[in-house]
Order: sequence, then C-alpha cells, then structure tokens
Amino acid sequence: MHGGDVYSDENPNGRDLIDFSSNANPYGPPESIYKIQGEALEHAMKYPDIEYRLLRKEILTHHNLSNVSVVLGNGAGEIIDLAIRGIESILILSPSYSEYEESAKRYGVKTSYLEYTHYQIEEKKYQLKIDVDDFYRKFESVDAVIIAHPNNPDGSMLDFKTMNSIVEFAKENNKRIIVDETFFDYSIGKLPFTPFLEENIDLVIIKAITKFYGLPGIRFGYGLCSREETAKNIRSYQRPWNINAYAEKFAIECFKDLDYKMDANITNREERSWLVGHLLELNIIERVYMSQGNYILFKLKNMKAGEFREELIKEGILVRNCDNYKGLDEYFVRIAVKKRSENIKLLSALKK
Amino acid sequence: MHGGDVYSDENPNGRDLIDFSSNANPYGPPESIYKIQGEALEHAMKYPDIEYRLLRKEILTHHNLSNVSVVLGNGAGEIIDLAIRGIESILILSPSYSEYEESAKRYGVKTSYLEYTHYQIEEKKYQLKIDVDDFYRKFESVDAVIIAHPNNPDGSMLDFKTMNSIVEFAKENNKRIIVDETFFDYSIGKLPFTPFLEENIDLVIIKAITKFYGLPGIRFGYGLCSREETAKNIRSYQRPWNINAYAEKFAIECFKDLDYKMDANITNREERSWLVGHLLELNIIERVYMSQGNYILFKLKNMKAGEFREELIKEGILVRNCDNYKGLDEYFVRIAVKKRSENIKLLSALKK
Repeated sequence: MHGGDVYSDENPNGRDLIDFSSNANPYGPPESIYKIQGEALEHAMKYPDIEYRLLRKEILTHHNLSNVSVVLGNGAGEIIDLAIRGIESILILSPSYSEYEESAKRYGVKTSYLEYTHYQIEEKKYQLKIDVDDFYRKFESVDAVIIAHPNNPDGSMLDFKTMNSIVEFAKENNKRIIVDETFFDYSIGKLPFTPFLEENIDLVIIKAITKFYGLPGIRFGYGLCSREETAKNIRSYQRPWNINAYAEKFAIECFKDLDYKMDANITNREERSWLVGHLLELNIIERVYMSQGNYILFKLKNMKAGEFREELIKEGILVRNCDNYKGLDEYFVRIAVKKRSENIKLLSALKK
Repeated sequence: MHGGDVYSDENPNGRDLIDFSSNANPYGPPESIYKIQGEALEHAMKYPDIEYRLLRKEILTHHNLSNVSVVLGNGAGEIIDLAIRGIESILILSPSYSEYEESAKRYGVKTSYLEYTHYQIEEKKYQLKIDVDDFYRKFESVDAVIIAHPNNPDGSMLDFKTMNSIVEFAKENNKRIIVDETFFDYSIGKLPFTPFLEENIDLVIIKAITKFYGLPGIRFGYGLCSREETAKNIRSYQRPWNINAYAEKFAIECFKDLDYKMDANITNREERSWLVGHLLELNIIERVYMSQGNYILFKLKNMKAGEFREELIKEGILVRNCDNYKGLDEYFVRIAVKKRSENIKLLSALKK
C-alpha cells in the first residue's frame, strides 16, 4: 500500500535492499544537521512551546509570506487529513496519493474522481494532464479538490494557465483548493501555488521538509492557509504539542541551507534525466512518464508490476508496484531517483 | 491551561524561569541517550517501519506481557484521545487532567463527573480518595471511566482493593476502563493496572516514557489494550508513520536502563518527602496533598493561586495555578519535585 516497505515480521530491522520505493533524498540531510544534534537533544529535555511561535515565524520567513496562517503536523499526512476533514465532498484526481481517499473515507467525506489523461509527448514519453472541461464539470458539484503538485506517482505539474483558471473558478464558486506540494522542493523554477494564498480564496497548501531534506523519520509537515478560519478548524482537531523537538530544530536548520536546496535540485534533475534516458531504451518498458519530482513512473510491456517487483527483490532492489493506484493498471511501477551508483545497479538489474 | 508555559509572544525562545509547572524529570535523560544520537539520526534518514514491529516487541518485553495489543502515539495524549473517541459516554473524576474532558468534547462523548473526596490524614496533610458507592452509581450509567493513576494534579493512587473491585464491576457490566499511567514510573512498589490486562475486560492502559526519562520534547506514549478490537479501533483513527525515528530509538534505549529508573525513583521520593516536610511548615499553606508522583498539590491559605503565581514569576519561578481544574477552587497550586538546589530556591521564594 505504501512505499518504503523494507520491514517485515521476519526482518523487523529492515531487509538489506536498495529502496527505490521510497522518495526520501538519498544524499542525507544538510551537514549542519549533524552539528546541531546536541542542541536538539537539549531542546527535547523541555516541553516545546505549545504554540510553536518560532517555528511558525521561520516558515513564513522561508516562504516570504505574511497574512497566512500556518498549521503544523506530525508529518504532512496529518495536515492533508485534517484539511479534508470537515468538508462535505471532495474531488480526487487519479492516479494520485492513496491517502487522500483514505482520509475522505475516515471522515465520511463524499468523493468523486477525475482521471488524468495519459498524454503522449513523443515515442514512449508520456505525461499525465488534466482535461480542464471535465475538471470543472466535476469540481462544480463538490466542495473541494485536492491536487498533488507535482503529482505522485508520476511527477506531473500544472502549467500557470491551468493553475490560475482553477483558482479563479474556486474563487467564484466558493470552493476549497487543497494542494499537496510535499514534493515541490524538487521543482525549482516551476510555479508553486503559494502566490495564490493572497487571493480571496479558501486555499490550503501542504508542504513537507523531511523527505526533501533526507529525514523522513523526523515526521514533520505544515499547511499554509489563506483563511484563518480554515486553519482554526484544522487546529481544533489537533492535540497540544504535536510536533517533536527534533522536528522543530531540524526544520529551522534546513530552511537556512539554500545551497543544499539548489544542489539537490541540480543533482536530481541530472540523475532523473540520465535515468529516464536509459529507461526509454529498455524493451521491457512501454512508457516513461515525464516527472518534475525525484521519482519516475513507467509502464511495463509484458510483465505485471507485482511479478516485476518480486524479481527485483531477488536482485536486492525494492521498487513500488503501482497496481493499487486508482486509474493505473497492473503494469505500472514507480522508482525513486537515487545516487548514480544505485541507479546503475537498478539499470543492470533491469537489463537482466 | 497547561503547565510548562515559559514561552510567550515576547519570549518565543522561553523565559528564563525555573519551571516548577512542568513535570519532566529534572535530571535529564539516561546517559546512553547522548551516545546513540548518531544512530538515531541514521535511523531518521529512512522511513520508519509502518508497523513499528521492533518497538512494539520491546514494549511487551519491558512490561513482561503477551496477548496484549500495543498502540503507539505521538505523545500519550494521542492514545488518551483515541481511547475516549468512539465510546458513547464516560465518567471523569475531578480534579484530574483537563485533556480528558477536552477529548470527550472533541468527539461528542457524553461526560459525567465524580468529585474526589478531600480526605484529611492528619493536620494539613490531605489525600484525594474515591467514594466507591458514589463511583459505582455514576459508572453504571456510562460506557467507560478514565482514571489517572497516579492522579494529576495531586499524585494519589488507588489501593488494590479498590482497583480490583472496579475491574470486577467493569467486567460484569461490560464497561471500558481507561487508565492513564503516564506518571506511574515514579511509583515503583505500587501496583499498576497492567496485571488486569489478562482479565476478560476492555482495559486500556496508557503509558508514557518521555516525561519520566526527561525527554518531554520527544513526544511518545503508548497504550496497552486487553482487547485487540479496541486496539484496532484506536489504530483506525491513526495515520501511518505517526512515531518519529528519535522516539523509536530513544524509547527502546530508555527501557534498557533499569538503574536510571530505580535511581530516579529513590531520588524523587527523597526530594518529595523533603519538600513536603518544608511545605507543611509554611504558614501560607493550608493543606498539602500526599503524592506518589513527582509533583505536589497544595492549597494556599490567604492568597489566590493566580496572584501567587505572578508573585513567584518575579522571583524567577513558574508554578502551576490549578484554578482551572474542575473540582478545585482558586487557592490550589501544583509544583514539580525538582533538584535539591532548585527546590531550595522555591522554598526561599515561598518564605518571602
């Protein structure tokens, strides 16, 4: 159901696999994180500020925002969950992150679905796109939409025109837009939804730092809400002190390291493009989807993803079988973009 | 509303106060925690096991339990919250931890209340007790009860006879018992509710390690459920990966250090008894409540707790004003048992 499944009852410490199923930054956290461990431990010996004033201030500074309400979560999933809770009905695109549907189910939120169009760019190269007319027809009859930007599992993004027109539509028709930008940090140069927070609209943008900064075990994400009312509603479901001391310290530290961000982007773009090039050459692969994230979706030609995954485990590699994504059939696989040495191992295994 | 309020808009880094309002162990964590920081950071670079198999196994070993279902929370508060959620009505004793009522409100759980009896042991020495007849009369008409053991804010505990009879009553009448034992680690030699987990009863015991082991910023607590069905229900409200990597590593490390546990208990008992002795001598104090925890409740004679708190802040000391506890009037104050040097500073300030 989720990536990162290297653990099992037989191997509770985790199997010795190269994990291409999870999307955490393979280069590990910024150097400075190692240096502030002692400080973070000191910090953990006190109760956190129940309002996390410093952290919220740093988040606003990081995004150069004001007049925006910040909500904090023990992982981005908490904010996704609570942004969906409390609405009546939601439009979910497919394929997309399965937790959106899980959250809707959990709180009895009615769901409707819109399938992405599988648009062919050139031979074997594909991209997921939204059919805008279909989108509005469906959006009209619900209270909210959730969009992953870039989308998971394929890494597609919206162009400015589409973003702007969705925002205008939501404004006129009084809808909530929830944007999951937990992988946006890999998309430097692309437009985030954050500038729209200043519009008179009910917009919630969810950000994460732990994946991008190589610290998925830290559990921290946050939401930027254009409306204080929405933020209040989200907070009303939260318990006090939901953010741990390490998350607080590490987040603030990560924000400072702009070089890390730039380097990670350059490296990821390079590796992704190298990997895509090689995947396109493989006969077992029917399609590769163009991604703005640090992961790549592809479709197999003659082998089902489940079997493919099992074969690769024998080679010491774990990939994400996407057959449980709504809107994808049993031939889809997602891999993470990792270090060159690991990417080479993956390609050798694929050639086998 | 909560203790530990050293932060403010003016001082987001925290004021320079000795914090007698929060109950974290003043001696800091076990030595070994400092040594495994690097290991914990490595661990944080991977996704945690979504089932946290190792951690759950260590918890069962630590309590010498089997056939018990473990649920894990980002702080004990999460488990308290979810154990209350999903029942129709609950009996809450007062005074007790305010979050019980908050949780009940959050999920529309009907509440009824029973006040503890303020029982005088000898001159100025008091203890909170439960009137058992009253208790059963009220318990009969609800689905569950929540008991803090030891109780917060006073540190009282139940004797074995009462515990046993409550368990028998719940068994016969099919009620859920929720026991908050987050401060039980200070009560070595006293009987926990854990042995009753083997009875055919719907019992949830909530434990914490972060306060006792001096790591309140780590956010970790867990629940031991006699019924798998109850554990399943609690888990159904949780999101994946709710426990951060540091909590996982540090918890397992803390469990190993049995010397720390014994030392903390001996030291706390000594300091508590020393502090109680001195508090009883002060004219401004009308009553002192006998505690099995690392905190002491007392009642002031001629000064309201709010004013008392403000006066002590001027002396660099923060105490917990208990006037917002249901069942206590505006003369009640709770203090933590801290290090001797800090306890001396408190007493000097009180003498002023």
